[in-house]
Amino acid sequence: MTDAIPGGARAPATVTTGPIRGSRKIYSSPAGRPDIRVPFREIALSPDSGEPPFRVYDASGPYTDPQAAIDLAAGLPQPRAPWIAARGFEPVEPRPVRPEDNGGATGDRLAPPCPARRPTLRGRDGQLVTQLEFARAGIITEEMIYVAHRENLGRQAMAGEAAARRADGEDFGAEIPPFITPEFVRQEVARGRAIIPANINHPELEPTIIGRNFLVKINANIGNSAVTSGAAEEVEKLVWATRWGADTVMDLSTGRNIHNIRSWIIRNAPVPIGTVPVYQALEKVGGDPARLDFDVFADTLIEQAEQGVDYFTIHAGVRLAHVPLTANRVTGIVSRGGSIMARWCLARHRENFLYERFDEICDIMRRYDVSFSLGDGLRPGCIADANDAAQFAELETLGELTRIAWDRGCQVMVEGPGHVPMHKIRANMDRQLKACGEAPFYTLGPLTTDVAPGYDHITSAIGAAMIGWFGTAMLCYVTPKEHLGLPNRDDVKTGVITYRLAAHAADLAKGHPAARLRDDALSRARFDFRWDDQFNLSLDPDTACAFHDETMPKEAHRLAHFCSMCGPKFCSMRISHELRADAAAMDDDRRRALEEAARGMREKAAEFAAAGGRIYVERGD
Amino acid sequence: MTDAIPGGARAPATVTTGPIRGSRKIYSSPAGRPDIRVPFREIALSPDSGEPPFRVYDASGPYTDPQAAIDLAAGLPQPRAPWIAARGFEPVEPRPVRPEDNGGATGDRLAPPCPARRPTLRGRDGQLVTQLEFARAGIITEEMIYVAHRENLGRQAMAGEAAARRADGEDFGAEIPPFITPEFVRQEVARGRAIIPANINHPELEPTIIGRNFLVKINANIGNSAVTSGAAEEVEKLVWATRWGADTVMDLSTGRNIHNIRSWIIRNAPVPIGTVPVYQALEKVGGDPARLDFDVFADTLIEQAEQGVDYFTIHAGVRLAHVPLTANRVTGIVSRGGSIMARWCLARHRENFLYERFDEICDIMRRYDVSFSLGDGLRPGCIADANDAAQFAELETLGELTRIAWDRGCQVMVEGPGHVPMHKIRANMDRQLKACGEAPFYTLGPLTTDVAPGYDHITSAIGAAMIGWFGTAMLCYVTPKEHLGLPNRDDVKTGVITYRLAAHAADLAKGHPAARLRDDALSRARFDFRWDDQFNLSLDPDTACAFHDETMPKEAHRLAHFCSMCGPKFCSMRISHELRADAAAMDDDRRRALEEAARGMREKAAEFAAAGGRIYVERGD
Repeated sequence: MTDAIPGGARAPATVTTGPIRGSRKIYSSPAGRPDIRVPFREIALSPDSGEPPFRVYDASGPYTDPQAAIDLAAGLPQPRAPWIAARGFEPVEPRPVRPEDNGGATGDRLAPPCPARRPTLRGRDGQLVTQLEFARAGIITEEMIYVAHRENLGRQAMAGEAAARRADGEDFGAEIPPFITPEFVRQEVARGRAIIPANINHPELEPTIIGRNFLVKINANIGNSAVTSGAAEEVEKLVWATRWGADTVMDLSTGRNIHNIRSWIIRNAPVPIGTVPVYQALEKVGGDPARLDFDVFADTLIEQAEQGVDYFTIHAGVRLAHVPLTANRVTGIVSRGGSIMARWCLARHRENFLYERFDEICDIMRRYDVSFSLGDGLRPGCIADANDAAQFAELETLGELTRIAWDRGCQVMVEGPGHVPMHKIRANMDRQLKACGEAPFYTLGPLTTDVAPGYDHITSAIGAAMIGWFGTAMLCYVTPKEHLGLPNRDDVKTGVITYRLAAHAADLAKGHPAARLRDDALSRARFDFRWDDQFNLSLDPDTACAFHDETMPKEAHRLAHFCSMCGPKFCSMRISHELRADAAAMDDDRRRALEEAARGMREKAAEFAAAGGRIYVERGD
Repeated sequence: MTDAIPGGARAPATVTTGPIRGSRKIYSSPAGRPDIRVPFREIALSPDSGEPPFRVYDASGPYTDPQAAIDLAAGLPQPRAPWIAARGFEPVEPRPVRPEDNGGATGDRLAPPCPARRPTLRGRDGQLVTQLEFARAGIITEEMIYVAHRENLGRQAMAGEAAARRADGEDFGAEIPPFITPEFVRQEVARGRAIIPANINHPELEPTIIGRNFLVKINANIGNSAVTSGAAEEVEKLVWATRWGADTVMDLSTGRNIHNIRSWIIRNAPVPIGTVPVYQALEKVGGDPARLDFDVFADTLIEQAEQGVDYFTIHAGVRLAHVPLTANRVTGIVSRGGSIMARWCLARHRENFLYERFDEICDIMRRYDVSFSLGDGLRPGCIADANDAAQFAELETLGELTRIAWDRGCQVMVEGPGHVPMHKIRANMDRQLKACGEAPFYTLGPLTTDVAPGYDHITSAIGAAMIGWFGTAMLCYVTPKEHLGLPNRDDVKTGVITYRLAAHAADLAKGHPAARLRDDALSRARFDFRWDDQFNLSLDPDTACAFHDETMPKEAHRLAHFCSMCGPKFCSMRISHELRADAAAMDDDRRRALEEAARGMREKAAEFAAAGGRIYVERGD
């Protein structure tokens, strides 16, 4: 199933392909649109379960489809190509690649670009280009139909119970409908409450939607650095991260070959790709922030937009006057982009040019429908700095910029912290919703303590689950290597699964209509000792199975009606089954008596709740 | 540092000893009581930090003290022996060991008992025995002085800022004082809001306190099962779990040799040991719940109390009338003890004898000061069953039992769930506080979703951090093997560190006066590129260092002013340092102008907060 590629090789060879354990890729089309094929993963349950196959959301792209012929040099199939073609965008001569785009790499050290060729498209002034513009014009795009069908997963099955389910959650003012229609998607995009990051030069994309009234999404970061890692590794990380559930991937590469590495990534990416263009712009000026200017930045935006990047992190909220607010921080400025722009501001003693010329940046990004991810350059880097004046001053600016971008037709999400103790998380969400008019929030964690390097996927999953519950639309993953080193393949998987479970916990708590279906299916499998079903329904079937087999390796044990933790005598679930058999065999009088007693208890429980829990009068002492 | 013992050997040989990386064991005595020596761990910081060594709580016992001679056969030193001796308890002839105490193991299959000999003590009627009785009588015990000194860790350093710090937290009605005095401990124990589990037959114990106004504690489970594991492995698991920070350890062994394995565990345990006596009682009646009766149960309590077990989980809240309330659950009854007692109730069609004869159980436990951990036999085993009628009916009964145990002089904590989605966690805490009169809550997780077997340390750490914040006093760990297999050494460590970070996140959010000191010290080290200080201040220095060295293995890199993630050019912290240098070099006019601008921002931020975040008027359009 896994064809490892040689680490460090410059040009990607092969990547991980094949179905995820116990499941198969299927495609489903919305009614009346057989041309739109939405991928899902279907988990077959054992015949004695009496349950149909279980369908789950699938961000893994064609790589998990055994029918798909994967050829990295040719790039992925292009589901969006006909939709985009119908919109009449102008084909343009792409900006020529210059040596500095690849950090001056030459000869042997220059990684080859992906040979796959696509036309380069650009929207015109006055033309509808972005999903936001289409939505405002009342037009439902194919992307909107696609994501509506994708999000609906399981909701039809729940239609009857939807109302009851909704009640079982606290959504903090979100408006999650029982069923997602393309028109609902259009409305959410039109009011800026959701985005569909989808560059018109990324036809390979399988669209996804990011907004608080949809499933919580997660992002995985990949990217080489000056110190390590090459093209082959990065493409495999992309495939690997989406295999386990990353909804979007950010390429944070710096150093040599970034243009060419990016070409491999985008041509082979079924998910939206995000970047931080200032990283490449800085490379082009030799690494000195003071030498940055608007021209090199704008040139970089065009270069990357033409390649097909779906969203850009832009640190336009780091204003000159904010910088002194960080002076007494314990960890200063911890965002790379934020620190670069702060340095620029102080060195030139001028307002951030990204802020001053934000209108022009919008106009460039609109032409390709590159979404904004407004960077939180002043996010806190430790518990001590959480929710401080610098952070919230920037957040206000991000609100201002959100409205400018909306005015100019651009889709926007807003980045958030960082390191925040639990009691300060809610304020971040509430302030962001107000300051940024409900534009989707996209947070990094937050980490709820600083004391556990090596375990920051966990310190941050706590904060991520909570802020996802409160309304964050996308959670940027953190791997176990955070603060310490570059994540390897295992770290990427651990980070992705950790964030998938945090996002799912958030969906459950929000009362997402279909979220609990999977928990319930897995729990039924657990109670019935259907071990393989339990593994296959889990977020990481391989690990679940391997952990089980470590203690009880024999195939026969997968049929055992107990497990290694308690052994047969102490298995509570086995005893529960026996209890039910006891109850079934009970004579009528006994059953009636017990049921009466239980009814009494139930009434008592209701009284208890009504009385605020003071049913038992204190005993005299 | 690590002397692995041969896995599966019956009699323990050696265990993991030696200091934790970068730190040394120290002992500190409260003023005027040089006889009371409280252990801490002191982390030396690098000379250029200008900071004194950092002191942390230390549950690891003498094993991390290079001065201590560890001899498992002789057992640990006995700090409590003189305190206990002064209380005049009656030495008694211990109950003779019977073959069924070890599950009928004989000959080669019989593990030898720990040869360490201690007098067996028992309290008399009318005599003050339990910490609760002493506290109510206005007497401050040595255990209370010990835990006060232990908890105060760092608070003296903060005395000045304490009030300000307190404001930075949300404690949901807890009453955490700026400084813990022995008298405060006495008051908390007297009103039942905290317990000090400390059997009079466990002189080796280094006392710890469990209550919502103290540091959040964590428990690790060890124990063999019918399927695997032996005495040597269990003692090493105990030492290993406490090394990484387990405050108490539960021995959940079943099957053969449990009496003798327990003797090794208790004689070598510096932390409170808990058990679930019904497991052993069930073994004594051949594994058939219907054959259990009060006599075999009471005999088991005495057997274990004489050995020195500090707290017993007693499933007296599983009442006959509650059982039918579980009939429609997705996963029935998932507590082993709960399912055993439910089976007994239905098989005999009688009220649970643990409930009916609870007074007598109290009287036995009081004589040794064994604390109650009132078992939540009906806790939910999946998201679907959370907060249901069965669970809350049992919780009311646990409140009733708490008051009975208090009346009879026993210390009590109350166990809680289980599997609970985030939005239903708070209700668990609030109901428990009300129903059980603020007796300490001791929860398992809770797991916030069922979909991630293999990662349930994380699904549960989310719930654990939250419920700890809300007021839970002790968190029972969950390992990555939960639901799948028996945890090995690595799993135990992962579980312990995960729960330590969750407990710490809870302390931070509650506004515990000294909790943030460690976060801040570590963050300063991070910002100053003091890599070794960062590792050593972390919860798991070995892993933090190994992760760093995986990417940047050379010793010199530990002095690098950047790391592998971003490389030198993109290191935000390095740039932050340069920023500060820029600012320092700035001429006066510029500095003044910037500071004014920043002041403006600060005022704006205040206005913003006051105006509910609507500072920017919506642009027309």
